Amino acid sequence: MTAQTSGGSAYREAGVDIEKATAAVERIKSHAHATFGASGAAAPIGHFGGVYRLGAGEDRLLIASADGIGTKIKLAFVLGGRAHARVGGDLVNHCVNDILACGARPLFFLDYVAMGKLDPDVLVELVGGMASACGENGMALIGGETAEMPGLYNDGEYDAAGFIVGMVEPDRFIDGTRVEQDDLLIGIPSLGLHTNGYSLARKIVGVTGEIEHDRAILSAPLAGSDGETIGSALMQPHRSYLAAVTPALDAGLIKGMAHITGGGLVDNVPRMLPEGVAAEFDRQSWRELPIFTHLVEQGNVPDMERYQVFNMGLGFVAAIEERNREAVLAMIPESRIVGRVVPAGTTEPRVRGLT
Amino acid sequence: MTAQTSGGSAYREAGVDIEKATAAVERIKSHAHATFGASGAAAPIGHFGGVYRLGAGEDRLLIASADGIGTKIKLAFVLGGRAHARVGGDLVNHCVNDILACGARPLFFLDYVAMGKLDPDVLVELVGGMASACGENGMALIGGETAEMPGLYNDGEYDAAGFIVGMVEPDRFIDGTRVEQDDLLIGIPSLGLHTNGYSLARKIVGVTGEIEHDRAILSAPLAGSDGETIGSALMQPHRSYLAAVTPALDAGLIKGMAHITGGGLVDNVPRMLPEGVAAEFDRQSWRELPIFTHLVEQGNVPDMERYQVFNMGLGFVAAIEERNREAVLAMIPESRIVGRVVPAGTTEPRVRGLT
Repeated sequence: MTAQTSGGSAYREAGVDIEKATAAVERIKSHAHATFGASGAAAPIGHFGGVYRLGAGEDRLLIASADGIGTKIKLAFVLGGRAHARVGGDLVNHCVNDILACGARPLFFLDYVAMGKLDPDVLVELVGGMASACGENGMALIGGETAEMPGLYNDGEYDAAGFIVGMVEPDRFIDGTRVEQDDLLIGIPSLGLHTNGYSLARKIVGVTGEIEHDRAILSAPLAGSDGETIGSALMQPHRSYLAAVTPALDAGLIKGMAHITGGGLVDNVPRMLPEGVAAEFDRQSWRELPIFTHLVEQGNVPDMERYQVFNMGLGFVAAIEERNREAVLAMIPESRIVGRVVPAGTTEPRVRGLT
Repeated sequence: MTAQTSGGSAYREAGVDIEKATAAVERIKSHAHATFGASGAAAPIGHFGGVYRLGAGEDRLLIASADGIGTKIKLAFVLGGRAHARVGGDLVNHCVNDILACGARPLFFLDYVAMGKLDPDVLVELVGGMASACGENGMALIGGETAEMPGLYNDGEYDAAGFIVGMVEPDRFIDGTRVEQDDLLIGIPSLGLHTNGYSLARKIVGVTGEIEHDRAILSAPLAGSDGETIGSALMQPHRSYLAAVTPALDAGLIKGMAHITGGGLVDNVPRMLPEGVAAEFDRQSWRELPIFTHLVEQGNVPDMERYQVFNMGLGFVAAIEERNREAVLAMIPESRIVGRVVPAGTTEPRVRGLT
């Protein structure tokens, strides 16, 4: 159970308060843990997915996760058309990556879509995007709910949530306890912001929700890019890491994984680390996409904060043993070594090297 | 995959269009079925829950469902406090009943909550209500997502979705194919509107979203009730039918079940009927709660429409063999015989006796 809301001062100015969110999440966790009792709940809240053991001769673990699209959805309202399918696919891939970080393969997906007034074309585009992404990730879209809620959502606006269930053999369940000092951290590139940091990003680029105004802003060229517009850079897909990671996972070469979503490297990488170790990154080791350079410069986003609000070019991080370095880099050609697991010390942050 | 939006002309005036919703849902179904492929999806979309077969020596079926609270949530915005916990519990019970209608017992639940600006007290109340209801239904709350989405939701407003996974032995999976002519229909009472028909109900009683105005309306006494207010009648819980139905289900006495949600008896009962049969109700056979009498009189809601928008006092319907009548009525003391399964004929509606 994680708050999607993350970030520091600049993010708070955009309307999001991480400390308040964190305090509420802690209270919610205690409510949730109170339900575990005699059920099959098999790991405390805090992993990238919820963990459930079916029992009765079934050793495999079910891993489940719920997610939303965040305020990237508001760009889809402005851009319309295929942008709805895009954010539908984003939602599915976000869910896939969350349970992948626990070592699980996706089984099925369900959606929740709520609209002020049902727009069949938008709905079909949106859910069509989800269905396509489900197919690409080899899972079934087995149900969902469409709610028309007049007065709660403005005309032309909606929200959507996704629910995923996957499965993992118990000896392949990744909970981060296996990561050790001197392991290497590999990073796999993101395509853009994925689905996080959009409240701040929208504020920085100056979109307001007024369609003509916003379309003009979004069609401006992005400095440092290969002719891309700001809009197309912001609408890059939240990619799935399933295909990229599966061969190394199947070969048993992955010791821990983090899906870099709300909270960035700063908050997500510690979720795969046991007590006693920290992650030391080399921020020169991967390419910063032009959209991130644009946002942090235009928005004057402080060093540490940019790595807490945005993924800054790394969408997925995994821990491997140094002796498997060449094998993993060969299996995931787009990955690179981005850091190392070091002793935690007593006062330093769990994630270092980013300032 | 069902649209929560249901009803005829009066409902459409309240901002909900059932035909448009139905057409979109059909297009979505075809997208969803395209994902089934080699996956374990084990039944077409249209049951009360999605059906998934794990395979690899695991015969039991997973049954999953996603739901929302509908615009009952807007009453919680007005009433505040414990009303948030109430709608949280409603959401859980709605999900429990949906998979129960397939014969499944709940395993675990996940939530999605989206707010304009995170209100920790409201969030903890809401999710606390979900956790309590999860505990009452013997399942674990294993995860969720809290999203702060400035600008999408008004201050003080939020939306929430729930996702449930349950399990059923294959020989206990209830898909309605076993229901036969001359079976009896039993009904189990609802406590009120549960979570359906609130767009129309709010319009009829005249709530506007203006808090002081609405609180005055909701504190008015409800005619024909035992001193209840309109507000307390409208905020009655969406109850769980799990405890009531389980003994008869375990005894193998239940042939089909329908959870009466959006679409009322008219749209939900046919979902448990095979081709060739219809449901004939005796509308004098159960008590109409005062809140329904009030709404249909004040709103001039036509005969058939009231049974499509509201549950009208029956929250759950099951089909049994006539020879098991006394056994089932003894196991579910609050149930009564409300109708019978009859030949479908060629032109008549699938649900009869309500006009």
